[in-house]
Formats: sequence, C-alpha cells, structure tokens
Amino acid sequence: MADALPPPGTPLCAEEIAVLVGGKLEGQAVGTFHRVQDLAHAGEQDVVFFRSAADETGRLPGQAELQALRQCKAGLMLVDADTEVASRPCIRVANPALAAAFLAQHFTGQQEASPIGVHPTAVVEEGAEVHPSASIGPHCVLRSGAKIADHARLLAQVYVGEDCVVGEASVLHPGVYLGPRVHLGAGCVIQANASLGAEGFGFVWSGEEHVPMPQVGGVRLGNRVHVGANSCVDAGTFQPTLIGDNCLLDNHVQVGHNCKLGRFVILCGKVGISGSVEIGDGAIFAGSAGAAGHIQVGAGARVGAKAAVTSNVDAGATVAGNPAVDYRLHQRMQVMLRRMARGKAN
Amino acid sequence: MADALPPPGTPLCAEEIAVLVGGKLEGQAVGTFHRVQDLAHAGEQDVVFFRSAADETGRLPGQAELQALRQCKAGLMLVDADTEVASRPCIRVANPALAAAFLAQHFTGQQEASPIGVHPTAVVEEGAEVHPSASIGPHCVLRSGAKIADHARLLAQVYVGEDCVVGEASVLHPGVYLGPRVHLGAGCVIQANASLGAEGFGFVWSGEEHVPMPQVGGVRLGNRVHVGANSCVDAGTFQPTLIGDNCLLDNHVQVGHNCKLGRFVILCGKVGISGSVEIGDGAIFAGSAGAAGHIQVGAGARVGAKAAVTSNVDAGATVAGNPAVDYRLHQRMQVMLRRMARGKAN
Amino acid sequence: MADALPPPGTPLCAEEIAVLVGGKLEGQAVGTFHRVQDLAHAGEQDVVFFRSAADETGRLPGQAELQALRQCKAGLMLVDADTEVASRPCIRVANPALAAAFLAQHFTGQQEASPIGVHPTAVVEEGAEVHPSASIGPHCVLRSGAKIADHARLLAQVYVGEDCVVGEASVLHPGVYLGPRVHLGAGCVIQANASLGAEGFGFVWSGEEHVPMPQVGGVRLGNRVHVGANSCVDAGTFQPTLIGDNCLLDNHVQVGHNCKLGRFVILCGKVGISGSVEIGDGAIFAGSAGAAGHIQVGAGARVGAKAAVTSNVDAGATVAGNPAVDYRLHQRMQVMLRRMARGKAN
Repeated sequence: MADALPPPGTPLCAEEIAVLVGGKLEGQAVGTFHRVQDLAHAGEQDVVFFRSAADETGRLPGQAELQALRQCKAGLMLVDADTEVASRPCIRVANPALAAAFLAQHFTGQQEASPIGVHPTAVVEEGAEVHPSASIGPHCVLRSGAKIADHARLLAQVYVGEDCVVGEASVLHPGVYLGPRVHLGAGCVIQANASLGAEGFGFVWSGEEHVPMPQVGGVRLGNRVHVGANSCVDAGTFQPTLIGDNCLLDNHVQVGHNCKLGRFVILCGKVGISGSVEIGDGAIFAGSAGAAGHIQVGAGARVGAKAAVTSNVDAGATVAGNPAVDYRLHQRMQVMLRRMARGKAN
Repeated sequence: MADALPPPGTPLCAEEIAVLVGGKLEGQAVGTFHRVQDLAHAGEQDVVFFRSAADETGRLPGQAELQALRQCKAGLMLVDADTEVASRPCIRVANPALAAAFLAQHFTGQQEASPIGVHPTAVVEEGAEVHPSASIGPHCVLRSGAKIADHARLLAQVYVGEDCVVGEASVLHPGVYLGPRVHLGAGCVIQANASLGAEGFGFVWSGEEHVPMPQVGGVRLGNRVHVGANSCVDAGTFQPTLIGDNCLLDNHVQVGHNCKLGRFVILCGKVGISGSVEIGDGAIFAGSAGAAGHIQVGAGARVGAKAAVTSNVDAGATVAGNPAVDYRLHQRMQVMLRRMARGKAN
Repeated sequence: MADALPPPGTPLCAEEIAVLVGGKLEGQAVGTFHRVQDLAHAGEQDVVFFRSAADETGRLPGQAELQALRQCKAGLMLVDADTEVASRPCIRVANPALAAAFLAQHFTGQQEASPIGVHPTAVVEEGAEVHPSASIGPHCVLRSGAKIADHARLLAQVYVGEDCVVGEASVLHPGVYLGPRVHLGAGCVIQANASLGAEGFGFVWSGEEHVPMPQVGGVRLGNRVHVGANSCVDAGTFQPTLIGDNCLLDNHVQVGHNCKLGRFVILCGKVGISGSVEIGDGAIFAGSAGAAGHIQVGAGARVGAKAAVTSNVDAGATVAGNPAVDYRLHQRMQVMLRRMARGKAN
C-alpha cells in the first residue's frame, strides 16, 4: 500500500502507520508500535481498531464494546469518523478493520519461516520441477510431473501427486495432500491436513458389487483460494472439480466430485456439497449447511446454518431449514410451531 | 473381463472395447480410443456412455442430457438398447455406466506409480513384515508386528501401528493412520488423511474427572472396503470395531467404537455413527445423517440426509428428520407445516 | 492407586486386583489375570465388570445384559453391591466401570512403544528444546522455539510449529499438526491427524476482495485435554483460543478462533463451534450440534444432538432443535407435529 515503509515485521511510528493505511492521524502518539491487538489486551505499543457506524450487516457496537473502548490502554487507535476517542491518538479511516488487517499483515510478516530450496529430507521424484525461489520443507513428497511455481511454500510433510501444479506464492501447510492433477492458482492457502483430489465417491452397481469408476479429472483451484484444515475437495470423474478465484472454504468442508464453484463463494465450517453441484459467484453457505447432488445454487444465494438444500436455489435467494425453503417461510414455520406447542403445554 | 486384451493403460480399437465390455459393436469406428470422457468434453479418440432407459431410481435423462448426446463429438458410445445414436458408431450393452467403469479402469491403469519395495526414507521397525511385492512409499512408518500383504501399496507418509494387517492389494493413500491392531482385508482403499483405529471416546466419570478406559480392540475391515478422505473409524474397547466386506464410507465419515457394520453398507459424506451401533447389510445413510449410540439399524434400511436416528430402525425402512421418523410421515409434517405457515402469512 | 503392585503390563492375581481397585474380594479366584474384557468374549484369564444399580442417567441393565452376565465365562468380576454373582469369584466396588478403567490401564500399559530420545529421521530445528525423557518419533518436525516437556511422546509424523509448548507426558499421535504458538498443558492426548492452531477463518471485505486478518493468537489447552482424530481448534486472532483443563473433544470437532471453553466441557463427534463462543464449565454438546458465533453457553448446559444454538444458553439449561429451544418445548413441537401429520394422513 505504500512504498517507503520499513520492511515487513518492523515496528512503525504513528505517522508511518497513517501512510500505510491511508488514514489521517489525530493527536500525539508516542514511540513505535509492533502489533495489532484487541481492546482488552492492548498496551502502549499496540494498535487497536474500532467502528462506531453500523457495519454491512447493520450491527452497531454494544455496551460491552463501548466500555472496552473507553478502558482500552492502546497507544494508537484505528477508528472511523463516528468514533469518540476522548483526545487519545488515533488514525481516522473509512474501514478500521480493513486498515487493521493490512497493518497486522505488515507486523506479522511471514509466519513459520520457510528457507528457499528443497529440504534434504524431502523426496522429489525425477520429472518434478521446483522453482528456485520456492520452499519445499522437511518430509515433503513431490511426484513426477509436479510443478511448484515461484515463491510457493510447502511447509512440511506435504504430498504433491503426479502432474500437479502449485501456483505462484501459494502456501501448503503440513499434512496437505494433493492427489494427481490438482492445479492451484496463485496465492492459494491450504491449511493443515486438507485433502484435495482424493478419488471421488463414484461407483456403479453391477448387480453384485460396487465397481469403482476411476476418478481422474483432478481439481482446479483459481487464484487466492483458501481451504481450511482437514477439508476435502474430491477429484472430478473426467474433468476437474472447479473452485473459482477468491473462494473461501473453512475447516471440515467437503466438496464432492464434479462440482463447479464460481468466484468469491464462501463455505463456512463443516459445509458438505454433494457431487456435480454448481454454485454461482458470491454465494454463501453458513456452517454445517449442505447441498444434494446435481443441483444449482445461483449467484449471491445465501444458505442458512445446517440447512439442507435439496433443489435449485435462485440467484440472490436466502434459504434455511431441512429441506431448505425461503428463510422467512422457515422462520414463520418455526415461530408458529413454537407458539402452538407452548399453547398446548399451557 | 477378457484375456487377449492389451495391457492396462494402452489404447483400444472399437472391436477390442466390445470384447472388454461384452457388448455388440454397431457402425464403423475409426482408429483407437484412449479414455472415457463426458458428453460435453469428448473428442474423436474418446468413449462416452449413455442410458436412455430409466435407471434403478426411475430417473430418465433430461432435455439437457439428450441435447448433449446429440451434440457429442465422441468417436464411440457405450449405450443401452433404447438409445438413438443417429448412425454414429456405438456398442450396445445392458448397463452403459458399468461398461464405462470397466473400460475406464483399463485406460487409467494404476495412478500414482508405486515402485515395488520399501523406499529408503520409510521406517520399518524390527518385527514388521513386508511382502516382497508390496510397495512402501516415502516417509511411511511401520511399527513392530505390522504385516503388509502381497501387492499392497502404501503411497507415502502412511503410519501403520503395532500388530496391524494390511491385506492383499489394499491401497493406503498419503497421511493415512492405522492405530494398533487394525486389520484390513484384501482390496481395501483408504483415502488420504483417514484415521482408522484412533482411541475411541470412552471415559468413566470418577466423581472428580473423566478416567480414560483404554480402547484396545482395534478395527477390522473386511475385503474391498472403501474409506474416504479424512474419515475416522475408532478402535473398539475390548473387541474390534467391525466394518464388513464391500462397505463404502465417503469423506468425513465417523464410525464410533464398537460399531458393527454388515456388508455393502453405504455411509455418505459426513455421516456420524456413535458408539456400539449395529448396521445391517446394505443399509444406506445419506449425507450428514447420524445415529445415536447403542441402536440397531436393520438390513437395507435407508436414512435420509441430515436425519438423526435415535432409536432402532427396522430392516428395509426409510426414515428422515430429526428425530428420524418414517420418511412419508416426515414429508407430511414438512408439507403441512409449510402450508400452515404460508396460510398464516397471507 | 497402589504402591507394591507389579509394573504396568504384568498379569495380576485376584488379591492384587482387589488392592489396585480398592475393593473386597469374594470367593476363590484361580491363577492370574491379564486383561479386562466384555461379558461375551471373556475367558478364564479375563476380568469383566457389571453394575446392577442404576447409573447416573438412571439406566438399569437390560435383559440381554443380565443374560450375558449369567453366561459369562470370566475368571473374575468387578461388580457393585447389588449384583448377583451365583457364587463366582468377584470383587465388590462402588463403581465397577471405574475400577475396570484403572485395571485396564494397568494391563494395557503404554501402547505403541515410544523410545526415549529423538528418532534420527526427525527434524529438530535449531532453537527447539526437547526434554531428555521425551520421545520424538520418526518423521516429526519441530520448528524453532518449540519446547517439548518431560515424558511427552510425539509418535510419528507430528508437526510442532514455532514457539509451541507440549506439556509433561502429553501424547501426540501421528499426523497431528500444531501451528505456531500452540501451548498444551500436561497429560493431553491429541489423536491422529488433528489440527490445532491453523489460521482461523478471519477476513475483512475490502469492497473488492476478502483480505485475511492474520491469526496470530495461537491456541492454549489446559491439562488433561483430549482432542479426537481429525478435529480442529483454530488459532485465535490476537489472543489464544482457550480450551480449559479436562475438556474432551471427540473426532471431527471444530472449534473456531477466539473461543473460550471452560473446564470439563464435552464436545461429542462432529460438533462445530463458530468463532468467539464462550462455553462454561461442564457444558456438553451432543453429536453434530453446533453454535453460532459470539454467543455464550452457560456452565452445565446441555445441547442435543444436531441442535443449532443461535443465541445464549443459560447455565444448566438443556436445549435441542434448529434453532435450539428448551428441549421439552422441542419435544412437544415434534410430538405435536407428528400427531397432526398422522391425523391428516388418516
């Protein structure tokens, strides 16, 4: 965001922070700052952030948060125009959380240092290619045909199957598995013990047993995709399972074979998507929601926590319940039922 | 299925394919074929499959599929008797998907080549036995008493605990964990990062704390069992947790300690089975369904997606909902509730 | 529990067992015993346990269990005062299951033998500290700043991130991942492929994309915490995610960033807790239950299987359903709905 700043990881003074976050400094801040912190734990060398205006969901800060702000001991605050700081030093920005994220990224730098090059305990098969700027940590295994692009980091104990591609600056945490033909774009982050490209659940009943249909399509992730710990995206049958740019998958998420996710799709923790489901740009599944196979969920749709989507969902719709229906209908169903049951009990 | 065919992985001409799948060739197919593909992506060297008759669930192909068939550019089709191919070359078979599965198995051969023998980075403790035809990949760990049968393949980073048995031609993908005394039959496939034989959730409250009851029974899988990525089957307390022949467990499935699954049981993604549950042959749990501890689910029973089974289920019954009831009753409950709520809103 | 007993793993005679479990021997038991076993599989060298009085949930043994007791071939029984043993040798104790747990711990000793010291294939970075009595198994990776306390055991293929602490006698099973700044107390057990301290799901929308807020708070587990296989506890944003002493987390459990769990909290299989949730001492979530973000669940609260907790739960309350309500209300809702649907169908 700014050119003349000290390198990542170094402390900054308030003026430098104002440049980094593109904000306006008010008051006299003392010394340098070395981390972002929450209101309750911040000290004189810490920076906090606070928003008084309603956020995108309409939520305003509660009494507890306002009191925490008053009692906060932080040396510097990132705040929006509406926040009363009682003469304490602050930097005014349009979006304090966003400013804090960029600032925290500066302070944090790169966690889990990853030396450039291939660790001597890693096993790199003949025919695998590793860019000289990439980092391949201890006990990784790279199969033939795997390509690791520049500045990619495989922390440790990662498995990269045949003919995989790991894009520029992508990070694979320990225990990650990439089956054959998994392609990751640039800037992806795959958390620990996630499995991408395992063989999907595809069998044909012969009359006597389930015969496995080979699942050879692999997986294709766009750029800047986040996959949470212990999550799974199965290989497609003939063509790759697709996860578009900027999708965010939380922990314990399962995406079945042959799914196609657009861009900016968010799947919260424990969401389960059956095979061959298409999900449009910007759709959101709340925690533990699921979708049956072969359905289509339109762009911008929102699916409530633990909902079971069993038929197509229109773009922009919000659904809830099992089976999922319009969320207002679901709410009325629940309220009505509760009232009736309470009446019966009286 | 046929004797004189070229070895797995080699292209086949239409006549050879007809022999392999046991079908009847119609029309003049040109050249050789090298893979099975879907209708939309197939080219001249590809084989597709299509069924016009209703499948076992009564489903018929939709308009989109019929149009895809008409526009398909595949050089060869595997089709049932009812399918109109407009003079294009095809092979008639009773079950096109099954024929395609066998054909795809031929073309795919063995993915992720596994050299016979023990990789130099694998750690094999004294007292472990590995058949000379087995493949033990990089960074595997085999504890004392482990036995790996002929043609078994441990791809990489697999842990095999004390006194485990891995049966003939079973495949363990990277990151798989077998705790002590886990026995796998022949032809099992365990996908990446699955954990079999972890200590079950067994504690006794002392009045002051939870005292762990050692869980030493291990796990016993029959032949041809499939376990999905990141799934868990816990060790039994005194006797093994049992998974019968030909069971299919999808990803993120959990089976608690002391369960007994019959043969051909299917547990779809994210199914959770508590401890000491018995499930009869051929029962099916749809995605994210669950069963409470110590109950019995009869042979051939079907449990709907996200259902919570809290009491015994009769053989052949179909249940849904939370708590699970007969699926028709569940459906009536939902329809009725929806109508009432809609009425109220009007 | 007793001083002069033979070392763990050795057989015991009935008199020694009576001392170990603090019970009273009745009848003449023959020879020595080498394991605890269930009623159906026990032989002459085995010890079983049985309780005739109602357990803490009010449950009494059923007919099948009483018959199994009569037919049991065990050489010795641990029983409560109410159990009729038909003159067979037994030891009377207040809590037979608890006595059996202590006895089984004696017989089992330590599974998966762990030699003291660092295995030659383990990678221990400069700046990591390992106590001489600890065991670091094959293919483990310890990053700089990691501290492994006395008698801790890392079985194999474990990753311990920067500045982690593994407390005295804690056990980490194969495939376990500890991200940076994860602190485990004494006596913790982390089952295979669990991920503690992965970066939580924290992003700020910039208007164009989701900007990751670095999650640097790590995780802090108290003493004697159990984490099941393939479970996840995410790192806190600025401060650690907290799991109190004696908490029990089963398999496939997810705890989001910034949660605070008290002591003795039980999360059964597949429970999902969103971010910033506070859970009081002794609260219990049954299987697949979940909690939305930023809510508080009081001490001793009980949440039913598959329930979705969307607002604060009082201490001691029992809730069920989606959204979760008082469990009696939930029950009435379900019963009423079922009756109405049945009526309609008639």
